[in-house]
Amino acid sequence: MLDYKLLAALAAVVEQGGFERAAQALALSQSAVSQRVKLLEARVGAPVLVRASPPRATPAGQRLLNHVQQVRLLERDLRSELPIMDEDHAVPRLRIAINADSLATWWAEAIGSLCRDEHLLLDLLVDDQDVGLRRMRAGEVAGCVCSSAEPVAGARSVRLGVMRYVAVASPGFVHGELQGGADCARLVRVPAIVFGPDDQLQHRFLAALGMTGDFAHHLCPSSDGFVRMLRAGVGWGMVPALQIADQLASGELVELVPECSVEVPLYWHYWRHGGGLLERLTQQLTAQASHLLS
Amino acid sequence: MLDYKLLAALAAVVEQGGFERAAQALALSQSAVSQRVKLLEARVGAPVLVRASPPRATPAGQRLLNHVQQVRLLERDLRSELPIMDEDHAVPRLRIAINADSLATWWAEAIGSLCRDEHLLLDLLVDDQDVGLRRMRAGEVAGCVCSSAEPVAGARSVRLGVMRYVAVASPGFVHGELQGGADCARLVRVPAIVFGPDDQLQHRFLAALGMTGDFAHHLCPSSDGFVRMLRAGVGWGMVPALQIADQLASGELVELVPECSVEVPLYWHYWRHGGGLLERLTQQLTAQASHLLS
Repeated sequence: MLDYKLLAALAAVVEQGGFERAAQALALSQSAVSQRVKLLEARVGAPVLVRASPPRATPAGQRLLNHVQQVRLLERDLRSELPIMDEDHAVPRLRIAINADSLATWWAEAIGSLCRDEHLLLDLLVDDQDVGLRRMRAGEVAGCVCSSAEPVAGARSVRLGVMRYVAVASPGFVHGELQGGADCARLVRVPAIVFGPDDQLQHRFLAALGMTGDFAHHLCPSSDGFVRMLRAGVGWGMVPALQIADQLASGELVELVPECSVEVPLYWHYWRHGGGLLERLTQQLTAQASHLLS
Repeated sequence: MLDYKLLAALAAVVEQGGFERAAQALALSQSAVSQRVKLLEARVGAPVLVRASPPRATPAGQRLLNHVQQVRLLERDLRSELPIMDEDHAVPRLRIAINADSLATWWAEAIGSLCRDEHLLLDLLVDDQDVGLRRMRAGEVAGCVCSSAEPVAGARSVRLGVMRYVAVASPGFVHGELQGGADCARLVRVPAIVFGPDDQLQHRFLAALGMTGDFAHHLCPSSDGFVRMLRAGVGWGMVPALQIADQLASGELVELVPECSVEVPLYWHYWRHGGGLLERLTQQLTAQASHLLS
């Protein structure tokens, strides 16, 4: 069998983002971690890490991490049947990549009871979908929530539902900047709020209304901060209807064009041979998402 | 004078995170942007960019960006007096690095009116404080909100106030996992929720209660997601009191040890010769923070 001490060292360096933290997590000296990674490289006959800050796995390292991720899931099943301790006494946990808006809305409600029942700990990584799927491919995560349907090799994807984004602003913004009207041509002349450079929701919404081209916008890469910027009347923006049900009901935010929304499908990606825990997580997610998402 | 076309190309590549997006933002071809950066390097006699993905400024490039940032702020003042258009028709904007919890709480309320009055657009970057200050030093941002008091060369820092973090959980979690008591020794045996590997708030809280060592925890790098995980009864965690006033009032979340909180000071860092807009932003922030923060 492979020497899993060496593989665990590699995984810790990548997951903890450095040799020093990996050493802490494994309760080893930093030079011991470094030696284990070097020994692994000698056995593989190729570098497994790019020594950057933070260190990244090489393609060879990624194949190894992919394997570690799956072995961990299988170990988790074993432990539920036999009281075996990890050699490194590490608490078993699942790493999952998830898009920011899912984490800010339906995720906790969907997985809360499973975490309690299974004594499951989660390492959540907030990533846009390209990064999330790249992490899946590299074996850095056990699962991934994103809007792409295409599974990576060795994994499955299942549709969770649709996140509906609506265009909203504060009543003050609507009266002041948009002069009270749903005159959409005005929308491109007042500031929008955009999550980040990859956020195309506002562009898609405007395109659906027949408007193209650039528009002035703030960048605000925080789901909560985004809604607060909207409430402060700084601009208009697209938000999951799920996230602002209260603010829409209270009139703190108003929908700009109720007949037009942008729908983003969501998929759960998970390893095909990931063991019983991952199967149960998948069942729970699909069941809960059918209530929580449209 | 310097050739600001070249400097603008450099700034766009770093700010947009790549040559292709920089070209879009400047309405140039990608090869034109690439040529401008090369010409700049010929004039400087040193590389200004590390061609990685995303591209990073070299130390020489950082000094240039630092300069561009300050020139932009001065231009902004000029434009408020004279109707001069940017040569590249870019909308003037301020890039600001800010910690996630500030953006999720007091920030929007503090700057909302200034954004409207000054027609100011913000590019917000969510960073922990080391990264935020590094961006300041590199001239990538005009200002930074973080918990470090020490200004970088050429900048000033001003104290905004204190963010008070309280330990909370759902009533169900308190009854089920903590057996209804404020028995703190139990806290280290039930799951905590931690924002990310750099989040030491839970450790500091436990240390203040006389407990040290490791504890089981979820990682959840989203301010909103964090509160939702708490509400779903997945664990306990430290949250800005400011962020959960409603949930504490409604009893949806309860404070675990009301006599013990963790206080984190917040500072605003800004360029000393950043011009009138940055001065007014600084005045607004300090005035508003004195109401919003304790």
